[in-house]
Amino acid sequence: MSALRKLVVDGPFHMRRGVLDSPTIAFETLGALSPQADNAVLVFTGLSPSAHIASSPDDPSAGWWEDMVGPDKPIDTTRFFVVCVNSLGSCFGSTGPASINPATNTHYRLDFPVLCLEDIAAAGAQVLDHLRIDRAHTVVGASMGGMTALAFTLLHPGRSRRLVSISAAARSLPFAIALRSLQREIIRRDPEWHQGRYDFEKGPITGMRLARKLGMITYRSAAEWAERFGRERATAEPPHEHPFGIDFEVESYLEAHANRFIGAFDANCYLYLSRAMDLFDAADHGGTLERALSQVELEQALVIGVESDFLFPAHQQADLATALAPHVKDVDFKRLSSIQGHDSFLVDMDRFRPAIAGFF
Amino acid sequence: MSALRKLVVDGPFHMRRGVLDSPTIAFETLGALSPQADNAVLVFTGLSPSAHIASSPDDPSAGWWEDMVGPDKPIDTTRFFVVCVNSLGSCFGSTGPASINPATNTHYRLDFPVLCLEDIAAAGAQVLDHLRIDRAHTVVGASMGGMTALAFTLLHPGRSRRLVSISAAARSLPFAIALRSLQREIIRRDPEWHQGRYDFEKGPITGMRLARKLGMITYRSAAEWAERFGRERATAEPPHEHPFGIDFEVESYLEAHANRFIGAFDANCYLYLSRAMDLFDAADHGGTLERALSQVELEQALVIGVESDFLFPAHQQADLATALAPHVKDVDFKRLSSIQGHDSFLVDMDRFRPAIAGFF
Repeated sequence: MSALRKLVVDGPFHMRRGVLDSPTIAFETLGALSPQADNAVLVFTGLSPSAHIASSPDDPSAGWWEDMVGPDKPIDTTRFFVVCVNSLGSCFGSTGPASINPATNTHYRLDFPVLCLEDIAAAGAQVLDHLRIDRAHTVVGASMGGMTALAFTLLHPGRSRRLVSISAAARSLPFAIALRSLQREIIRRDPEWHQGRYDFEKGPITGMRLARKLGMITYRSAAEWAERFGRERATAEPPHEHPFGIDFEVESYLEAHANRFIGAFDANCYLYLSRAMDLFDAADHGGTLERALSQVELEQALVIGVESDFLFPAHQQADLATALAPHVKDVDFKRLSSIQGHDSFLVDMDRFRPAIAGFF
Repeated sequence: MSALRKLVVDGPFHMRRGVLDSPTIAFETLGALSPQADNAVLVFTGLSPSAHIASSPDDPSAGWWEDMVGPDKPIDTTRFFVVCVNSLGSCFGSTGPASINPATNTHYRLDFPVLCLEDIAAAGAQVLDHLRIDRAHTVVGASMGGMTALAFTLLHPGRSRRLVSISAAARSLPFAIALRSLQREIIRRDPEWHQGRYDFEKGPITGMRLARKLGMITYRSAAEWAERFGRERATAEPPHEHPFGIDFEVESYLEAHANRFIGAFDANCYLYLSRAMDLFDAADHGGTLERALSQVELEQALVIGVESDFLFPAHQQADLATALAPHVKDVDFKRLSSIQGHDSFLVDMDRFRPAIAGFF
């Protein structure tokens, strides 16, 4: 069973650096839209999740934010109409590099235009149009989704009353750019990538596995792993005498995560979405961040950062909250002491649930 | 011109997990040994440097620690006899996986025994024997060299009066292990690695380039790069429309570093040395770190850590200093506020020179 709904755009969809002909934008909804259409919570996702944010009668499988969204949960679907969009450029229903280009009847692959987070935000706005929602109650996003949510408020002022930005940033800094650039290069250097023209049944599996391992290293924190793994050995055996077997438990953990990722995500889509994060800079929408943010028409904003996040460090999120403050009446910045790093919003529910529930 | 000297061990050299037949241990010396043979400073290096620590009449080219070692420099070669050892397992004169195995007359490659930092330390002790030095004035090391220097004091109590450990640790923690394990896997997954049996003229160049980029990311700090690169573009042009060109200055910087590394280091040697760091745990020499360190016969120790180092975090070095304190009369821990991360000892001379000069 699937709760996935699809909107096919009628005609051209103008991206910042290209045009798509009638793309599909996939989304899921939970709860019911109020008669006044004033209870919509629009959610943009991180790089890898689908639109399946939580279980529903139409799709009872657990979603990627199952603990946060549902009846009587912090984002309470008995009160709110939750709309979660599969990012344009992704591969879970929305048009992306793995989709068929109607102009050529072959897959887009690298013919897909350069993707920007602004394009993903614009696709989200089209979903609101389609659902006849003039103004969302709140636009929410974590990680890449938080940057996209910010892009949404910049491109579509007034289309959301509120913003919740979690473990995101107003721009990518060089350390995060370096890490993502390296992940992309690892994929591109896999001989099986074939300049993007790989067989979809095979593709750059090794590159994707290695990029995922690097991702996992940047999504968690040294402190969490020291506590969780220490120097625990992967087996009761002494280290393999082959010089490059797996010695330590942390290596087994990465191996398991990498293996789970394979087949779940298209390599070209990954490359496009990853680069879109690097390219994003809210300041592009006004010359400076301050001028850009003067355009958002928000009543309230909640910015959440995590101390142990080194991919989207808390100081960048404090900066975002500070820059929003002159333009938004009610801005709250929460700096959480979770030890799980960037991924804390997915796992540290003891800290994240009250922070989100308090807002809603 | 070369200042490299070589000691050929007479007979078997027992490693922790194997035996080498008459290995060569390469080293350089600067300054003169005093008649009492009490002014030797034994230096172990990080993973990639050679024994060429500084320029000398025999080799006037700049060494890897040129600013620190020389006449009237913090490690003053008019007073001290500096002995810098090329690590066993490396490829700059000492026997390693790229050397010929006398038993087979072919290169060792993966037939080289599992390498431990203790083996590198033992090779350093043989150099002291060869030079007829009973006790070094000080054993010094940074990064992997600091771990090796600690191993030296554990294996050879009393052979050095003093220890200087810089940006090192008593053991590798899972975050650092994960990063190094991934670097090794990136090299091994390069089809040109051929299970270690690559053509020395070619080899896994792509894997080495990517591993070096990951290394550079872990050797510096996010704060330094934010200051140095910000979101500066690699060219004055707008970002390449090819989705995966180099967009940002930080990507050009990594590219340049990766290219410089190629041809300079043997891939198998890199794999062995990298894993040796992961395997090291000073606690192996006594059951606990505290019991292990009770064996060191040191008069004085200086432990230096850098706040922005996330590969060998300062808290690990504070822990080492604390654990040394009950057993060493004079232990000083310096926590430096350099922003260049793990590599600060190579570049932040304003902070490192006085710290080292003060000790000597």
